[in-house]
Amino acid sequence: MNNLPLGFAYSATYAGIRNVEKDDLALIVTGMAASAAGVFTQNRVQAAPVRLSRRSLERSHGAASAILINAGNANCATRTGDAVALETAKQAARHLRMPATEVLVASTGVIGVELDPAKITSALPRLVEGLSPARFDDVSRAILTTDLRPKTASTQVKLRRGPVHVAGMTKGSGMIHPQMATTLGFVMTDARISAAPLRAILKRGVERSYNRLSVDGDTSTNDTLLLLANGASGIKPEGAELRKVEEAAAAVMEELAKAIARDGEGATKLITIEIDGAASDDAAVRIARAIANSPLVKTAVAGSDPNWGRIICAAGNAGVPFQPSKTDIYLQGVAVCERGLAAPFSEKELTGKLNAPECEIRVKFRGKGRGKARFWTCDFTEGYIRINASYRT
Amino acid sequence: MNNLPLGFAYSATYAGIRNVEKDDLALIVTGMAASAAGVFTQNRVQAAPVRLSRRSLERSHGAASAILINAGNANCATRTGDAVALETAKQAARHLRMPATEVLVASTGVIGVELDPAKITSALPRLVEGLSPARFDDVSRAILTTDLRPKTASTQVKLRRGPVHVAGMTKGSGMIHPQMATTLGFVMTDARISAAPLRAILKRGVERSYNRLSVDGDTSTNDTLLLLANGASGIKPEGAELRKVEEAAAAVMEELAKAIARDGEGATKLITIEIDGAASDDAAVRIARAIANSPLVKTAVAGSDPNWGRIICAAGNAGVPFQPSKTDIYLQGVAVCERGLAAPFSEKELTGKLNAPECEIRVKFRGKGRGKARFWTCDFTEGYIRINASYRT
Repeated sequence: MNNLPLGFAYSATYAGIRNVEKDDLALIVTGMAASAAGVFTQNRVQAAPVRLSRRSLERSHGAASAILINAGNANCATRTGDAVALETAKQAARHLRMPATEVLVASTGVIGVELDPAKITSALPRLVEGLSPARFDDVSRAILTTDLRPKTASTQVKLRRGPVHVAGMTKGSGMIHPQMATTLGFVMTDARISAAPLRAILKRGVERSYNRLSVDGDTSTNDTLLLLANGASGIKPEGAELRKVEEAAAAVMEELAKAIARDGEGATKLITIEIDGAASDDAAVRIARAIANSPLVKTAVAGSDPNWGRIICAAGNAGVPFQPSKTDIYLQGVAVCERGLAAPFSEKELTGKLNAPECEIRVKFRGKGRGKARFWTCDFTEGYIRINASYRT
Repeated sequence: MNNLPLGFAYSATYAGIRNVEKDDLALIVTGMAASAAGVFTQNRVQAAPVRLSRRSLERSHGAASAILINAGNANCATRTGDAVALETAKQAARHLRMPATEVLVASTGVIGVELDPAKITSALPRLVEGLSPARFDDVSRAILTTDLRPKTASTQVKLRRGPVHVAGMTKGSGMIHPQMATTLGFVMTDARISAAPLRAILKRGVERSYNRLSVDGDTSTNDTLLLLANGASGIKPEGAELRKVEEAAAAVMEELAKAIARDGEGATKLITIEIDGAASDDAAVRIARAIANSPLVKTAVAGSDPNWGRIICAAGNAGVPFQPSKTDIYLQGVAVCERGLAAPFSEKELTGKLNAPECEIRVKFRGKGRGKARFWTCDFTEGYIRINASYRT
């Protein structure tokens, strides 16, 4: 991984939480206390680690030095959930010699099964011992569940006084329909940014990345996206330079969100939906979301079927007014619908283009509207069903 | 079919609209002008037959004598849509010697492909000639698309002055997520009921039947449910007797809605969702709908997996406040979650029970709430994907 931010260390190990022997416990640590911001699931049912991390960020006023993550068990809807989250955070803090509120926690996996804290606490010594600045990729693999591929992104921003770095990792790959954040995502930077602007950067970044993503329309109980800025570069960007770093952080989040869509459960294609000319950005997002959540659109893309009727039908379900007679639709850049009617196109040729690993659906409303949105999802295949009809048992 | 209302005649024929040679054009006629009420899709994109039938009902102040239905082409998002709907209604009216506004029309099938009116008008003579009170079942088959089974229901209500009858038919089986009506449904009664109370009966009936149904969360552009009352029984129910007829009509609609869920694309199981103890009926419906639309819940049912974590997670996405710690969940009558936590149950035994063709999910909130809802959906299988990745091409 290039462009790793300075001053962070990573570690992963197998703690026996998941059945297959594959790392399932991970740690991200920064030597110096970092500013931290988090966004969490909007689901009414929230996992214990979500509740604890939210509270810790409040109590610490946006400071954190470590993130303890487990896969294989969501630590949600269990008798002991809160106690397990708190106890494991405390034990990690003890090993790391930091206040417990500075250890954030995140979990992903099955809901409603008790998580044995001893599995985690007994693995902590070797987890802490294994910390290394070079093990970023190990953590990116340890946090996966049904994901096929690790998902990372990074970038460098050259500022007047030198470079700062941003790197992030995330996991998908079902129950993905972020309302505020999604799934698990961890983004680190060595820029020095205090907690309040960091929160603003995270919030705006999420709006154009994780909140524009759907795999299956289900919002998980555990969604957590954390952004840590430890200042290890020694550079505190301000003004235009801060906006450059914000743009870099948003670009990393966008890349992570796209990676989740591309690796959605059973997915064979990344779908990018572009809306133009809607009454407002909000209207554009709602239309994009309705298309992204339509199983009929997603199965048509799986079958490389240029079925624009399903696209305009899905748009019509967004609860947003628009005139079908002013609606144009493009698939892979080819006009398939003009003013709400079939456009002349070669079905054979377009079907060929739709066999590509990326599919672009563009809906353009003629008229004065300036509302825009970009949204990501994936196609819907028999693989999704196979995975989810048998995931738990 | 038993309990057929008096005074209606039915006919069906193959007009060459769909590729396979299977009846695709149907007619329902009543000799005497009937009161009529309709509910239609809430999709912003509305098919031409939806627009025409809605307008005809307004102009006739709720009178209709015939319904002309075609399958295989939705007559939606086409250049000639409105003209085709109007022309075919007019020609049918000419053959039937009635005002054109008294012929309602409904279409189902592919969106965005021009519908050749000559196919319909040239078939009209033999369609009219074939009219018979006994051909109810032929029509119920002609209106199907990817449905595997025809869907009909009927009942008799014994009133003081004699019996009246209610019979209905409907079709599914994808793009099913009614907001107001769904798909195509036609319900006939020989009771004498004037247009205003008939509309109220339809509206209340839809609320507890078609509006409590989802196959895939996609609302079609063509949804149409029509209720015709021709008075052929000679009986005009009033007061308590009218309420009995309303109950019978609602029961028929409920049976039709359940039949759609049971025959959802690729479905192997009917899922009934019961919500109890919510803050209001509306809250209960929203929670039920969130569960019914969750692909993760529906794939778990397909796999006979008692995965209640996905159910409480889906409920948490309904946008309705509730306390997880006061939430109980039952699958096939077996408690799987008590106060938001795993209940002790035999997984093996319950998995066996979940192999049945009907699955009941019951969510009960402890406390003072009295909000209730019943909702229907189906499981989500690889069959749905197969059908929809290749339906059009």
